[in-house]
Amino acid sequence: MTIANDIQTEQSYVFQASVDKLGPQVTEGKGIYITIEKDGKIHKNVLDAITGAAVGALGWGDEEALEIMDKSARASTYSYPCLISNKSSEALAKFYIENSPEGAFSAALWCSSGSESNENALRIMRQYYLERGLPNKVKLMSRESSYHGFTLGAQSMSWNPRVEPFEPYLMDRKKINIKIPCAYTYRYKKEEETEEDYARRLIDDLENKIVSNDPDTIAAVVVETLPGSSLGTTPPPKGYLKGIRELCNKYDIIFYLDEVMCGTGRCNPNGRLNCWENYLDPCDAPDIQTVGKTLGSGYVPIAGVLIGPKIKNAFLNGSKAVVGGHTYSCHAFCCGVALGVQQKIKRENLTSNVFKMGNLMGEKLKNTLLAKSNIVGDVRGVGGFWSVEFVKNRETKEPFDISLGVGPRFKAVCFDNGLSVMGMPGNPDGSCGDRALLAPSFIITEEVVDDIVGKMVKSVAELTDELKSEGIF
Amino acid sequence: MTIANDIQTEQSYVFQASVDKLGPQVTEGKGIYITIEKDGKIHKNVLDAITGAAVGALGWGDEEALEIMDKSARASTYSYPCLISNKSSEALAKFYIENSPEGAFSAALWCSSGSESNENALRIMRQYYLERGLPNKVKLMSRESSYHGFTLGAQSMSWNPRVEPFEPYLMDRKKINIKIPCAYTYRYKKEEETEEDYARRLIDDLENKIVSNDPDTIAAVVVETLPGSSLGTTPPPKGYLKGIRELCNKYDIIFYLDEVMCGTGRCNPNGRLNCWENYLDPCDAPDIQTVGKTLGSGYVPIAGVLIGPKIKNAFLNGSKAVVGGHTYSCHAFCCGVALGVQQKIKRENLTSNVFKMGNLMGEKLKNTLLAKSNIVGDVRGVGGFWSVEFVKNRETKEPFDISLGVGPRFKAVCFDNGLSVMGMPGNPDGSCGDRALLAPSFIITEEVVDDIVGKMVKSVAELTDELKSEGIF
Repeated sequence: MTIANDIQTEQSYVFQASVDKLGPQVTEGKGIYITIEKDGKIHKNVLDAITGAAVGALGWGDEEALEIMDKSARASTYSYPCLISNKSSEALAKFYIENSPEGAFSAALWCSSGSESNENALRIMRQYYLERGLPNKVKLMSRESSYHGFTLGAQSMSWNPRVEPFEPYLMDRKKINIKIPCAYTYRYKKEEETEEDYARRLIDDLENKIVSNDPDTIAAVVVETLPGSSLGTTPPPKGYLKGIRELCNKYDIIFYLDEVMCGTGRCNPNGRLNCWENYLDPCDAPDIQTVGKTLGSGYVPIAGVLIGPKIKNAFLNGSKAVVGGHTYSCHAFCCGVALGVQQKIKRENLTSNVFKMGNLMGEKLKNTLLAKSNIVGDVRGVGGFWSVEFVKNRETKEPFDISLGVGPRFKAVCFDNGLSVMGMPGNPDGSCGDRALLAPSFIITEEVVDDIVGKMVKSVAELTDELKSEGIF
Repeated sequence: MTIANDIQTEQSYVFQASVDKLGPQVTEGKGIYITIEKDGKIHKNVLDAITGAAVGALGWGDEEALEIMDKSARASTYSYPCLISNKSSEALAKFYIENSPEGAFSAALWCSSGSESNENALRIMRQYYLERGLPNKVKLMSRESSYHGFTLGAQSMSWNPRVEPFEPYLMDRKKINIKIPCAYTYRYKKEEETEEDYARRLIDDLENKIVSNDPDTIAAVVVETLPGSSLGTTPPPKGYLKGIRELCNKYDIIFYLDEVMCGTGRCNPNGRLNCWENYLDPCDAPDIQTVGKTLGSGYVPIAGVLIGPKIKNAFLNGSKAVVGGHTYSCHAFCCGVALGVQQKIKRENLTSNVFKMGNLMGEKLKNTLLAKSNIVGDVRGVGGFWSVEFVKNRETKEPFDISLGVGPRFKAVCFDNGLSVMGMPGNPDGSCGDRALLAPSFIITEEVVDDIVGKMVKSVAELTDELKSEGIF
């Protein structure tokens, strides 16, 4: 740690996070390490175990990515995509389709954020039912403790306490959005249940809600394959996603997976793209899927909507057109960069690497953190996406009071130990504890895994001791 | 025109515009010219008079812009902006504030699209009133024939026929959004009225609506300074914006200008950034303003929200924080590119150039198109943003039936004449005719102006003759 030569004034001109002063700033990144300037001090070689918010796949400052950017910039001319398209967006769509199970997807729309992707998915679903002459199929079913984006349509699908202040500007959720339970094995699977029993209970509940809300008015069931910031990478119990797919088939409902945070290689067992391949056969693919984050690996803002054949066919048999769009949908430069980044990831088998190394990291975290008495209640995740949930009492799973800020405080302890993680607060109603999230670059090695695990173990021990000395644990 | 060497298959993988076949694709751009591949044919040197959708400021393939991109890429590391910020976003905010009238703005939030900017403006307004302990101030007042974006929150503020199919997913507009008349001098100023009289009538109507809807429940009046795609660059009548500002002051309401399409140099009389400087004194600046399009000149997806001191102070006196955000808000690379592009525009006085050349183009279009009998009813705009409205009868201003597609058809005629414009359909209820939009690069010369005007005059004459021969005109 050295003092910055050019200490920043306290004034911040950016209206985000703390608006009264400058917060921490990233000043450099190389591979898995970042340099952070905070309160006039430079913190070098911070090990980035979260890559922003599960964004980075390639690692930072990747020389080939920079060349891809320059090449894509020189090859691209902006056009308004509703009138004039471009070859890069076509090539990226073809790549995503061809690197997903055969028959799963037939088209893609590229957007500039995960929020926009979920907004466009909603629009596409609406038009899909209008094309089919079913205007009453409008209701959404989405889960407790979910997060689908920051724009108001995406927030309307998201059940979590941070959405509530914006309720006046959301869609009429009482009419439109039916809240269904989350799938959260650590807290809600009964001791006497198997995972399959728990999934069956959730599916039976879902079917009851579908039937009692009139299936002819229900548009979609929306689920994060692996919930990210909202619930901490809790994997779906065995049979759960397959059960949703079967109900969607039975009642003519769109099966909609949100893989903005968990998709595009972060958690794929086959060295490919989709997280659901862990849990579903190709024939049970979602009808609509949103993606983002690792797609551009942070180098450019890009996200997308994948369209299954059922949806595309309804358009082909109908108006054959999506009217309107965003100025920066299918942006040629961004699509070209994402394609180059994904081609490199594929060529270097980085998805297989992060699946293997991430699972190793998860196992090591379980073996070390759960073996001792400390504040860790659960370690869960898959591939390159893991969470640690903190509890006051491991037996009863009682979470800490959220006013203690254990999640954010853990993040600060990690930072002091040279590790960047995300620290999330628990739910105010105690339905979920504070969590730390890990989503490292796809390029991590076993040595890096051990470094992350070592720093996590040290940080957990330190925060456990602190909370003990404060009489909280 | 030459045949493409590598004729594209008809299959399209991108779910936008026509989903059954490949539409036109841009393959090259240099300065004001683009190359378009359409149905296997290459159209070279098409004069781009619309720059996508009023996006391009610098012209395409600008060598310095490409260098700025490479430099910004090499200097930037992605970070999740809610936790860790970066210097480029601060520098761009400072630049925008310093190049606006003194005291107008105190902060900025950078987003990835105009839609996101308007969504975030809504969120910021909501939090602003919560910070002040005024949770009932939620109602929006927005105009007939308006457009504020493609996401569902932004669509909820937009009154136009293309929004209606998505009504189930919009906010409860009957409760939340009060529709006010557009300001559309060509059609709605009475013959006996002066522009000031017309503005006064609109302002009196607005005040009546404010009073009858309970001012204590009204959050904002939202207006496009110069409406773009929705109504064809109809300038606000004299005194109109000032009148809104006065009512906002009187009733403690946010004055919110949408300059996504018309702002950031496209129509500024002082060689600077904001369109409202044509119509308002600095002390009457908006409290919130959204921008986009020319900000990144199409090279990167970027847009933003400018925050006035009234809004920022409420946060400083309150929670001091904006919680949550987009993964790609304040994206360091994109902010760096936008800053470089804006610095070049400033250094080369391109905003002054497009204001002068655009107004010259407008005058020449008026002088030529309105001097002869043809389908043109009105030519209007300011600076670098102009529209031509088509009518069946110049005396009665009767528009064409929208099923004739005169706007899109005009676009096609222009394309055959080597000119790219936007061709918009009229409103189904006849409240606005078909229109062609022009928004050229800031680099245009008088020679280019004459070329655009010549091609417009030729295209109008051709379409007039065609419609005559079909018995329509």
